[in-house]
Amino acid sequence: MIPRAVPLRRHDSPTIFEREPMTEQKQLKLGAFMRPVSLHTGAWRYPGAYPDANFNFQHIKSFAQELEKAKFDAFFMADHLAVLNMPIEALKRSQTVTSFEPFTLLSALAAVTDRIGLVATASTTFDLPYHIARRFASLDHISGGRAGWNIVTTSNPDAALNFGLEEHMEHGERYHRAREFYDVVTGLWDSFADDAFIRDPESGIFFDPERMHVLGHKGEELSVRGPLNIARPPQGWPVIVQAGQSDAGRQLAAETAEAVFAAPRNLADGKSIFADIKGRMKAIGRDPDHLKILPAAFIVVGDTIEEAKAKRAKLDSLVHYDSAIASLSIALGHDASKFDPDAPLPETPETNASKSGRERVIALAETEKLTVRQLAQRLGGYAGLAFVGTPQSIADEMEQWLHEEGSDGFNVVFPFLPQGLLDVTTRVVPELQRRGIFRRDYEGTTLREHLGLPRPENRFFKATAAAAQ
Amino acid sequence: MIPRAVPLRRHDSPTIFEREPMTEQKQLKLGAFMRPVSLHTGAWRYPGAYPDANFNFQHIKSFAQELEKAKFDAFFMADHLAVLNMPIEALKRSQTVTSFEPFTLLSALAAVTDRIGLVATASTTFDLPYHIARRFASLDHISGGRAGWNIVTTSNPDAALNFGLEEHMEHGERYHRAREFYDVVTGLWDSFADDAFIRDPESGIFFDPERMHVLGHKGEELSVRGPLNIARPPQGWPVIVQAGQSDAGRQLAAETAEAVFAAPRNLADGKSIFADIKGRMKAIGRDPDHLKILPAAFIVVGDTIEEAKAKRAKLDSLVHYDSAIASLSIALGHDASKFDPDAPLPETPETNASKSGRERVIALAETEKLTVRQLAQRLGGYAGLAFVGTPQSIADEMEQWLHEEGSDGFNVVFPFLPQGLLDVTTRVVPELQRRGIFRRDYEGTTLREHLGLPRPENRFFKATAAAAQ
Ligand SMILES: Cc1cc2nc3c(=O)[nH]c(=O)nc-3n(C[C@H](O)[C@H](O)[C@H](O)COP(=O)(O)O)c2cc1C
Ligand SMILES: Cc1cc2nc3c(=O)[nH]c(=O)nc-3n(C[C@H](O)[C@H](O)[C@H](O)COP(=O)(O)O)c2cc1C
Repeated sequence: MIPRAVPLRRHDSPTIFEREPMTEQKQLKLGAFMRPVSLHTGAWRYPGAYPDANFNFQHIKSFAQELEKAKFDAFFMADHLAVLNMPIEALKRSQTVTSFEPFTLLSALAAVTDRIGLVATASTTFDLPYHIARRFASLDHISGGRAGWNIVTTSNPDAALNFGLEEHMEHGERYHRAREFYDVVTGLWDSFADDAFIRDPESGIFFDPERMHVLGHKGEELSVRGPLNIARPPQGWPVIVQAGQSDAGRQLAAETAEAVFAAPRNLADGKSIFADIKGRMKAIGRDPDHLKILPAAFIVVGDTIEEAKAKRAKLDSLVHYDSAIASLSIALGHDASKFDPDAPLPETPETNASKSGRERVIALAETEKLTVRQLAQRLGGYAGLAFVGTPQSIADEMEQWLHEEGSDGFNVVFPFLPQGLLDVTTRVVPELQRRGIFRRDYEGTTLREHLGLPRPENRFFKATAAAAQ
Repeated sequence: MIPRAVPLRRHDSPTIFEREPMTEQKQLKLGAFMRPVSLHTGAWRYPGAYPDANFNFQHIKSFAQELEKAKFDAFFMADHLAVLNMPIEALKRSQTVTSFEPFTLLSALAAVTDRIGLVATASTTFDLPYHIARRFASLDHISGGRAGWNIVTTSNPDAALNFGLEEHMEHGERYHRAREFYDVVTGLWDSFADDAFIRDPESGIFFDPERMHVLGHKGEELSVRGPLNIARPPQGWPVIVQAGQSDAGRQLAAETAEAVFAAPRNLADGKSIFADIKGRMKAIGRDPDHLKILPAAFIVVGDTIEEAKAKRAKLDSLVHYDSAIASLSIALGHDASKFDPDAPLPETPETNASKSGRERVIALAETEKLTVRQLAQRLGGYAGLAFVGTPQSIADEMEQWLHEEGSDGFNVVFPFLPQGLLDVTTRVVPELQRRGIFRRDYEGTTLREHLGLPRPENRFFKATAAAAQ
């Protein structure tokens, strides 16, 4: 009788069995990296893929609704302020050349989804804080508290040429401006107390001017009076996200971010980034739990590990060599088309473009002893962290990352769509749920609630008279 | 038997009877001015109104869907880049202090409507052409060709303080920049030929680089390389709208606009604006039919004319005197709170703010012999062109404007919502349809098709090889 007791309890009271680990186990956070819908440049050619998926609202709407059904934390839109700086021979083979602008797409998705978070990328180098503060506040209101801002400083130097500059702003200056930009935007979001709007038809008072703050910012880079002409966002502030990997990027994250889209190569690297950023937070007195580290993870699912690897190989085979070499050039910040394809990677000088990207590529070539051709084909496909296997093996890897403090979750990159996305939502997610490390339903309605982040207090107003004491 | 024939024909073949005037009579175009949802500052206090309507997505969504059911051409969003420059005593009584940002709101509406046009206001003084070109192109793609751009130069001088400037750019310079800005934005929309995107999975060619144009603009005010990182909009270009009334504003409209939101005081004024702008078009060789003049019209509907007037009086009574005097100050570009309320309007100097607004107010005071108080209360409510009466009397007035070339239609301002909007969609629109001067269904799917505007050719590429000959 005793040996039967354990399985019996499982079957007789499934809610107790299934709930228990949900409340006790550390939970994975899952974002979906959706611009482009796949980062893999061969994705649009994969059998069954929609070649126009990047730029077809009906497809993207169906992806967002599927991700919401699977209880993903967020839908994440990257953004670029120029056509990607690839040689034309590569560009013409890449689906990344055009996609929707983030605010228009995410706002449209806000109207046809209810819970999933909506994270837009916006540049502090080529935009202005009054515009950025307004748009995120507006998106947060329209979506009922689901907006997030991925702060980028823009690494593509071609963007400068589209904004009246002759050359790109220097790396350190970009981050200096980003830090001040963040202060201004969050200050503008605090223009009105949460309870400023009275809207009393009897007295005729619409809002209490005592509960409105004029920012009056005059800093080194920016001068903005305020107030914002929009009520405080439902989340207080939309969730702050950061994706820079350099020292300056990590420091900005430690000081300001609530989520980081990291790009570690492997678990050891992930642990080091995790410890570094959370350590920087402790050093300045921030609670490390108030920032979630979500590495980008490329997920390919098969019935067997071999089948999954075969899918990836098939996908990589769809990348033209010209595109491959272009990706390598971007990553290095140096034209690689003249390198001997079958020799090891030669030495190249450091440039003003992404530092972390260059270091990663050099390390990848060394670790795996790749030729230029092999390295280029890996980069032209997808070179970052990848989980390629069965739902079980992928869940094993995710669980290991979570428990060994490699990350708080992942920002999933799909190999091809719709099938590669459905493989994750219908096969990997149920396995994570079965293990009790991913939600079966949303805990709340806002992105902050999904991620377990506190709502920031208004820096100029206490929430209530009682709280002010 | 003969006397019975006419009514019989009406009943026996209603489709023929009803269709005939639709194809023969000149058709009204109708926009809805929706930011704020009512321009009348007392609207939020009117019995039955939603005090938060300006800032509640569910309400605005229901308004847009109702307007679409009534076959309105467009939903129009004004925009302001600062809290309105009223004295705080007036501001705190005004629902205009906050509203959604246009791109986020209109994109969300695009996802929950199918046909109605979506016109967003964007400033050429405080934004950048690459951003503007991208957002409108993206909105046009998401909405299936329903976007319009209301070009404004921004008259509120407080906006400058939110964008790092010490004082507002001078009126003439604003219009000079606007003209160049338009050239850049339309040039960016033409970055790709309509057929540039091949997306052939077999050959691996995503787009034809021969069908991509690098703008390379270097002008007096702006320098923008391009190309835009977004495909050509479905409409070719989103519809160009203009709302400036000064000489410079009208000239910009004649050169570039496809719709004008005019603000005539009365029919004589309307005819003069109509003749002036269409005359300027002829002078530069544009077809006057390719620009629709849509005056803002405040519509109050009653069972009798007296009832309609009583509704307006009730609404005006909800405007506080402080708000009234603030509106007068804005219109004059001069603080009116020190004027004797019961004396006629004193002389005031011209300022850098709106010229046309000031002239209109001075004329209104003279024509109707109003004291400062009376003038202020009219302005604090709604001072522009108004049709106050029964569905029949309102339709009579609209028909007269249409036939006497006072306008091509109207941009309707609702007195209060939802009821004031429903009165138009369910009472005035059916009367216009019965007369055969307003559509019973949309003729096409794009805003251009609704307005009867041609699709612009790409200035860099002919549509097809055949068309190029
Ligand atoms: C996962 C991930 C996503 C990113 N998304 C964007 C993006 O959407 N737009 C952009 O301009 N840069 C993006 N970046 C680049 C970073 O924001 C940053 O500009 C770049 O890494 C260079 O800065 P760094 O030297 O601090 O790494 C992304 C980086 C990572 C790792
Ligand atoms: C019906 C109408 C709507 C307008 N909407 C806006 C608006 O949304 N935002 C704005 O900054 N100006 C708006 N304006 C102001 C004009 O764009 C313009 O800036 C102003 O009339 C001053 O220019 P002017 O001297 O050419 O008339 C509007 C004007 C009219 C007549």
